[in-house]
Amino acid sequence: MQICKTISETRAAIAQARQAGQTIGFVPTMGALHQGHFSLVSQSCAQCDFTVVSIFVNPTQFGPNEDLNAYPRTFDADCQGCQKLGADLIFAPSAAEMYPKPNLTWINVEKLTEHLCGTSRPTHFRGVCTVVAKLLNIVQPDRAYFGQKDAQQLAVIQRMVADLNFPTTIVPCATVREEDGLAMSSRNAYLSHEQRRLAPVLYQTLQNAAELIKQGNTNATDIIAAMTEKITTQTPGQIDYISIVDKELLHPVATIEAPVLIALAVRIGKARLIDNIVVDPS
Amino acid sequence: MQICKTISETRAAIAQARQAGQTIGFVPTMGALHQGHFSLVSQSCAQCDFTVVSIFVNPTQFGPNEDLNAYPRTFDADCQGCQKLGADLIFAPSAAEMYPKPNLTWINVEKLTEHLCGTSRPTHFRGVCTVVAKLLNIVQPDRAYFGQKDAQQLAVIQRMVADLNFPTTIVPCATVREEDGLAMSSRNAYLSHEQRRLAPVLYQTLQNAAELIKQGNTNATDIIAAMTEKITTQTPGQIDYISIVDKELLHPVATIEAPVLIALAVRIGKARLIDNIVVDPS
Repeated sequence: MQICKTISETRAAIAQARQAGQTIGFVPTMGALHQGHFSLVSQSCAQCDFTVVSIFVNPTQFGPNEDLNAYPRTFDADCQGCQKLGADLIFAPSAAEMYPKPNLTWINVEKLTEHLCGTSRPTHFRGVCTVVAKLLNIVQPDRAYFGQKDAQQLAVIQRMVADLNFPTTIVPCATVREEDGLAMSSRNAYLSHEQRRLAPVLYQTLQNAAELIKQGNTNATDIIAAMTEKITTQTPGQIDYISIVDKELLHPVATIEAPVLIALAVRIGKARLIDNIVVDPS
Repeated sequence: MQICKTISETRAAIAQARQAGQTIGFVPTMGALHQGHFSLVSQSCAQCDFTVVSIFVNPTQFGPNEDLNAYPRTFDADCQGCQKLGADLIFAPSAAEMYPKPNLTWINVEKLTEHLCGTSRPTHFRGVCTVVAKLLNIVQPDRAYFGQKDAQQLAVIQRMVADLNFPTTIVPCATVREEDGLAMSSRNAYLSHEQRRLAPVLYQTLQNAAELIKQGNTNATDIIAAMTEKITTQTPGQIDYISIVDKELLHPVATIEAPVLIALAVRIGKARLIDNIVVDPS
């Protein structure tokens, strides 16, 4: 497994694989890899001849008061984990390699970024879209793997790739959870022992909401009220949002008649945790 | 020479050329091709094994009161001209092929789009950037050819390609002029005989400005005043702008100490004509 710090080395190595007729799989990450990331790497290695994992804590997707500097960095363990699974190349550029000049070019996906995390993180998705476009142009993968845990990110990237005709297939991958249901996240590392014990309530709340819908409750306000109550009483978390939105444009729905995305963001201690579930009422 | 109306046919044909080890050159156009466009096609054919010319009047770069519907269309002559020069493929999609859904993803290049044409055409460059990104992702060329006549467009595209790491080299090509100096443009077709006779004053004005700078005049306001006077007295044109800007970020300069771009846009009858010149004071 090669570890490349520069764009030119990375391009040269991938061009060689491409010339040998290999298909290219790509897993973009910010490092601090957990089983969720590793499931993406495994899937890429199973479906593609040559798997590239990028490790880059992208400054342009963090807001001014967010956790850019605190974001966990575990580079050596990340590389070992990827190598064990059969990844072929780690692309780990510096910020100066990725942004040699002040970045003036931004990609914005309208509508899909208006709600959910877009409300409290207004510049987050343009940072994500811009860096993902850069990475897709550097790696030029046949397939790129994104986790369903970041449901809005996945939907936004899928729309960007479709609208801009990127020659890459986006492969959505199921959320990987701890045994008690907590969605794996690099930010779980911020939780104290007690906070970690209570964090699975978020997923239980999503499951309860799904149960209510399956029982025939179609009123989004009622379901959100029940979810709010559970999280408020059973955790010390501060709710950023709990939303029920349509699957394509991620706009809030009042009445649940078609498959919906139920998504939440809750601050527990220093961690802002997100999770979601797709529910089909039929 | 193949003529392809769909993205999938175009991708298949280019993939075949690529597999045969050919380099891909690309000339994006809105059709109504003139000697300026043909010079780009010739340059691509000379430098690349397989030349793709796109012909697409892109609706997203026209403002609500602009000339989208009136824009000249000469498809058969365009194809004949390209074939004669040795182009390999014409990509001529419909608007529905390029925008099958409402487009939600926009690329914006900051700073470089604030002045010059960006002032009177506020959504023009995001339309240009977005469609060029789409076309680059469809064609995946090694080199793409753009005329210096659209100097701001060229600078904006160069910055977008650099910022987003597109794997394409942008090749700037000199403006091609009529014998009397008028820059070739599809919009020259809108001029009456009398308007056409006076239109070369625009280029003469740029040359006069260059002369003033070469003589040691460094005051941008004085030079713009002289240019305004000449155009106002010698043509029926309405000046949209006359600007002297730095070459990288296209911001107005007060004192000319380094190479500058002198650019103008003037409405003569139904035609909004643009032209420019780069002047090095040293």
